[in-house]
Amino acid sequence: MTPATPALPTYDDVVAAAGRIAGHAHRTPVLTSRSLDADWGAQVFFKCENFQRMGAFKFRGAFNALSRFDAAQRRAGVVAFSSGNHAQGIALAARELGIPATIVMPEDAPAAKVAATRGYGATVVLYDRYTEDREQITRSLAQQHGLTMIPPFDHADVLAGQGTAAKELFEEVGELDALFVCLGGGGLLSGSALTTRALSPRCKLYGVEPAAGNDGQLSLRSGSIVHIDTPKTLADGAQTQHLGQLTFAIIRRDVDDILTVTDEELVDGLRFFAERMKLVVEPTGCLGFAAARAMRDALRGQRVGVIISGGNVDLARLGALLAG
Amino acid sequence: MTPATPALPTYDDVVAAAGRIAGHAHRTPVLTSRSLDADWGAQVFFKCENFQRMGAFKFRGAFNALSRFDAAQRRAGVVAFSSGNHAQGIALAARELGIPATIVMPEDAPAAKVAATRGYGATVVLYDRYTEDREQITRSLAQQHGLTMIPPFDHADVLAGQGTAAKELFEEVGELDALFVCLGGGGLLSGSALTTRALSPRCKLYGVEPAAGNDGQLSLRSGSIVHIDTPKTLADGAQTQHLGQLTFAIIRRDVDDILTVTDEELVDGLRFFAERMKLVVEPTGCLGFAAARAMRDALRGQRVGVIISGGNVDLARLGALLAG
Repeated sequence: MTPATPALPTYDDVVAAAGRIAGHAHRTPVLTSRSLDADWGAQVFFKCENFQRMGAFKFRGAFNALSRFDAAQRRAGVVAFSSGNHAQGIALAARELGIPATIVMPEDAPAAKVAATRGYGATVVLYDRYTEDREQITRSLAQQHGLTMIPPFDHADVLAGQGTAAKELFEEVGELDALFVCLGGGGLLSGSALTTRALSPRCKLYGVEPAAGNDGQLSLRSGSIVHIDTPKTLADGAQTQHLGQLTFAIIRRDVDDILTVTDEELVDGLRFFAERMKLVVEPTGCLGFAAARAMRDALRGQRVGVIISGGNVDLARLGALLAG
Repeated sequence: MTPATPALPTYDDVVAAAGRIAGHAHRTPVLTSRSLDADWGAQVFFKCENFQRMGAFKFRGAFNALSRFDAAQRRAGVVAFSSGNHAQGIALAARELGIPATIVMPEDAPAAKVAATRGYGATVVLYDRYTEDREQITRSLAQQHGLTMIPPFDHADVLAGQGTAAKELFEEVGELDALFVCLGGGGLLSGSALTTRALSPRCKLYGVEPAAGNDGQLSLRSGSIVHIDTPKTLADGAQTQHLGQLTFAIIRRDVDDILTVTDEELVDGLRFFAERMKLVVEPTGCLGFAAARAMRDALRGQRVGVIISGGNVDLARLGALLAG
């Protein structure tokens, strides 16, 4: 009865998600910088998901997905694997909805993220990112205990929830000429794509990944999902090995291009946000800005959106990067 | 013809200042934290002047004062002394109004503040904070070149301008039970006092200074302005030696109490803002929060305002403090 290729979610699913998360997720502020706009000769709008609950956009998709559980699923609980922010998103959404949560996290995830996940009441199971298969561990936990697994990006409810950030952005600032969105597994980018094609159809939409982990760019160019080894990059939220089936199908259809930036450009971004905008942004959250800055000459005279995906960075690590 | 005791500015002057700065100063956002509110059992509203132009509330008073210059004053220019943010406020406001600016700054001011002041086109004159008298240097420059001196706090137009931050806060969130405002020379506190007594008359209003520089507290208790040596504290924006005549008169009349916090409490504040609220705040900007936290049990059930005064902290210094 299940079709081989599931139907892709649409902007209607984003609208439904917005209704479910209202009153639970923050409607995050959009900030601007006069000095940046003067430098670039553009109008740049930053959608600040670092101010989202648990510090990243991931709460949106997690809450949307969990709020659709039936009574049996709610009783048994949810299991998820995540390099960090999805973990916290699921843990916090589960706590709010009274659902038990088990989270499978890499041993080298930032300490602040592990602590925050436990702080939200979830059970954390650690694994070795370089030798073990997180999906296998998660599936085995799900089977043993009857848990429902919510993957970090390749799930219609998750990506529809992530699309609500761009929805709020367009509703607040109107149509844009270009929108820059960070790309790991593609949940935020594919959700943003559904929204962008509905609310600002002529907007150029760019996904941005770390240069060390450009599987998305390779996939878009080759026309099929490319798998890579876990990339080593400061952008710990974008250390994915491959896009999902759903996210790739939407990205391939709706995204104009996928760009890459180096770790050095991410550190420049951390500095810009801290010094000029007084914002704490995690390295992954700097991807969109770093790519926009690299092509700022082409953006002259344009209205540009950048989604800051999150701000969950270990303070000792941030301190070392800023002081360096 | 000058009265011995000048008439004190009133809330009408704050309203007039708000009209002058409209479209020039940012109407800064008010942010909240659900987890903080849950911890304290209170509703806490942070007025984020770290998002103000040049990164601190000082732009408000500077722009208000300079916009009242006559044609001859505009041609000759302005001179100001400042440990940092007033300097940048005057420099940026002067640039916007086409007025030449000379700024007298301590040699040990944060490098970022000196660079930013020069970046706004001002001429910077450095002095030794511990051996030289900045007011004397400034007066001498003013006399030699016919410049108008704008002091950092003890000036009716400056403090009326600073009062616009609290005005925006009350307009956005309504009346409060308590408001915490950092205190150096008293410009922000006295301006906030005029506003508070007009818009939220039953609100408890607290000024907060570093424990190492509690001249304001001593002044309030003794009933006359107490002078101290330049205090050594992380809160470089509150290293004042004494309150002003105008600011003290208003503070004495309208402020409920003056509290002090230690440098350790300020570092805890930096951490809270960076980790939980994703905000870069300068140490001085943490004074209000640190004092509120120390008395959080007494704030249970209350609506509490905290003004975050600024975010201009040297990133290497912030990094060292956060990593430590």
